[in-house]
Amino acid sequence: MALVAEIIGVGTELLLGNVANTDAQMISQGLSALGIHVYFHTVVGDNDARLRQAVEIASLRSDILITTGGLGPTYDDMTKQTLADCFGLPLERHQPTVDSIRAYFSRLGAAMSPNNERQADLPRGCIVMQNDCGTAPGCIFEANGKHIIMLPGPPHECAAMFNGCAVPYLKTLAGGCLVSHNIHIFGIGEASVEEKLRPMMLQAQNPTIAPYAKEGEVWLRVTASADTEAQAEALTRPVIDDISSQLGDAVYGIDAGSLESTLLQQLKRQGLTLAAAESCTGGLLGARLTALPGASEVFCGSVCAYTPLAKTALLDVHASLLERHGVVSAEVAEAMARGAKNRLAADLGVGITGYAGPTAENGVPVGTVYIALCDHHGQTTVKQLMLGSDRNRVRVMAVNHALNMARLSLLA
Amino acid sequence: MALVAEIIGVGTELLLGNVANTDAQMISQGLSALGIHVYFHTVVGDNDARLRQAVEIASLRSDILITTGGLGPTYDDMTKQTLADCFGLPLERHQPTVDSIRAYFSRLGAAMSPNNERQADLPRGCIVMQNDCGTAPGCIFEANGKHIIMLPGPPHECAAMFNGCAVPYLKTLAGGCLVSHNIHIFGIGEASVEEKLRPMMLQAQNPTIAPYAKEGEVWLRVTASADTEAQAEALTRPVIDDISSQLGDAVYGIDAGSLESTLLQQLKRQGLTLAAAESCTGGLLGARLTALPGASEVFCGSVCAYTPLAKTALLDVHASLLERHGVVSAEVAEAMARGAKNRLAADLGVGITGYAGPTAENGVPVGTVYIALCDHHGQTTVKQLMLGSDRNRVRVMAVNHALNMARLSLLA
Repeated sequence: MALVAEIIGVGTELLLGNVANTDAQMISQGLSALGIHVYFHTVVGDNDARLRQAVEIASLRSDILITTGGLGPTYDDMTKQTLADCFGLPLERHQPTVDSIRAYFSRLGAAMSPNNERQADLPRGCIVMQNDCGTAPGCIFEANGKHIIMLPGPPHECAAMFNGCAVPYLKTLAGGCLVSHNIHIFGIGEASVEEKLRPMMLQAQNPTIAPYAKEGEVWLRVTASADTEAQAEALTRPVIDDISSQLGDAVYGIDAGSLESTLLQQLKRQGLTLAAAESCTGGLLGARLTALPGASEVFCGSVCAYTPLAKTALLDVHASLLERHGVVSAEVAEAMARGAKNRLAADLGVGITGYAGPTAENGVPVGTVYIALCDHHGQTTVKQLMLGSDRNRVRVMAVNHALNMARLSLLA
Repeated sequence: MALVAEIIGVGTELLLGNVANTDAQMISQGLSALGIHVYFHTVVGDNDARLRQAVEIASLRSDILITTGGLGPTYDDMTKQTLADCFGLPLERHQPTVDSIRAYFSRLGAAMSPNNERQADLPRGCIVMQNDCGTAPGCIFEANGKHIIMLPGPPHECAAMFNGCAVPYLKTLAGGCLVSHNIHIFGIGEASVEEKLRPMMLQAQNPTIAPYAKEGEVWLRVTASADTEAQAEALTRPVIDDISSQLGDAVYGIDAGSLESTLLQQLKRQGLTLAAAESCTGGLLGARLTALPGASEVFCGSVCAYTPLAKTALLDVHASLLERHGVVSAEVAEAMARGAKNRLAADLGVGITGYAGPTAENGVPVGTVYIALCDHHGQTTVKQLMLGSDRNRVRVMAVNHALNMARLSLLA
């Protein structure tokens, strides 16, 4: 029988909305890959009684409890104490951890505050997980038939410890096999996808097919369970092929991660390079591409040209063009794409210009964006889009469309 | 007595880790500003029985239940049905909503799938909240002494409806007054901040002082409650002043939002402009600055120079400099900063070069980053940083330090 895990995020900063619960997202992805079900996430503040309540409820419905946060050195960090109390274990100071915290501070050349030592107080008999990115250790123990795993809150510490220590432990617990693949779709809406695939989605039992919408994208998750990974894989394959052939090139990848990683791989495979000229997106396209390791092999760079001078001096967009057509125009987008391609000696150039808002200018409505692609055959195409009035969404969608135009041009 | 709200996120995509629960973050911020307490967030999948369980538990401990997600047109969208069942209300088709969904599709020039009509089925007697950014309406009803608010899942739809409709409704419910301010600190760690301020933090009752760590930053939240906003404000002020004078210029702002918004305001106040040259951050500094409305007044643009050619051709970094010192060096960072300042005719120029990983090159370890600032007096300073081995963190921290260097130079 499949194991069920529940993730309990501990931290008043989560309840105040100061941060999003990205730890739960990261851990959920990992558990899903292990075939461990997650039916609930809970978030609770730095409050002993309410954390206790959350642990009690989770214990009734889950085999594995994973907490994040509240392991730090300050007085409102109480996860270890509360969890140890809930399961009747005392805390004991763990000397090797004291030593490694001390070593961490001396490596940084920083002074160690005395309250940092409190982080070495851990439930008796637990497995101690070292923190390679910070000072708070995590721990694992088994009690009352439940597996308790405590991870630190800061996202990079949490991810390193989860993947490095908790996943190997969980692998020994999980039996059976669940395989999931995501079909990534750009350019058609969720309802249209479902309308097209409804009979298949309703019939689907193993694998199941679950749709969801993501900024301008639709993902379909195809999940099969079987005794072995190979059997589960074999169940998903015909379903993925069938959906892919029905949706054509709107499917940009299977488990592709993102439009940018798909494009990066296409460029690498074809030995081509890309450069960009960004106006309203302000560098976001470059930032998304270069977030991926290995981007430097195919991405030459981008010019974020926020002023007219930047457009003329760095991208060779003629001042007369700006005057005649306005800065947000098909003509300027095209000149920017060509300028980026030439100046950075790339095979493909994209140019993005638009009004992300909140204010409109020159009679052009907010959300108007022109995207030009100058491809590796020297052909230029321009697309005009109306992307609504939310500044962030306009920028994200403009980048999505630019990446997608480049992707489609490389399919031909 | 203060009201207590609980946020229930509905969606299997959250439990699979495909998306983070940013809706809960956004709503929590809004509730905190209204003085409504939030003690728990729950996330549950698209599953009737488990959603029912979450609603039952939340009803026992909260006055207000806010759900997000599961209002869409597909068969796994069940929030309205389940919540209506839980509180004994039937669903009824709401004709004005059918008409407005129809109008939405015709505005987009898109075909309306028949299953979109299901979105107009709403609990009898509810307040209907129109969706200005999508098709799924939200709703509010009161039953068994609880206030139920259902919002759509997609973040921009959720935010628009929460702020536009739910907040005005909640304002009529909330009495008393809670005021919160965040003190934003960059450059010293959480434990050091607490060590310094411990007696004050432990004594604090009204206002309370809560610390938390954010990528390289520390925030202190100072929260006071009183009968009126003015009284609550008056309670927070001396505490904020005291902390600010103890921490000096490591405090970059009060309720400042971010380092980038602080810098943007400084530049505007002083009538100065900024340009950037980014290598390992790939455009992230530009993307973060231009995410803010009005960035164009003070940000000239940036050159994301991923190739040596980009550095020489667009930033006038001499090829000999690259050869002699290597691409990741103080000298190249300095030349990049100067190149950005000159080429984009800005008052300040920043240059960032480093290895974000995963691989090291030329014997320089991963995480090595040089940041140069060429300020409005023509003075250049360079900082060398070791930012660890996580690619994303290296990039984020490099941008933070660059923003902070520019901020400090404008304080003088």
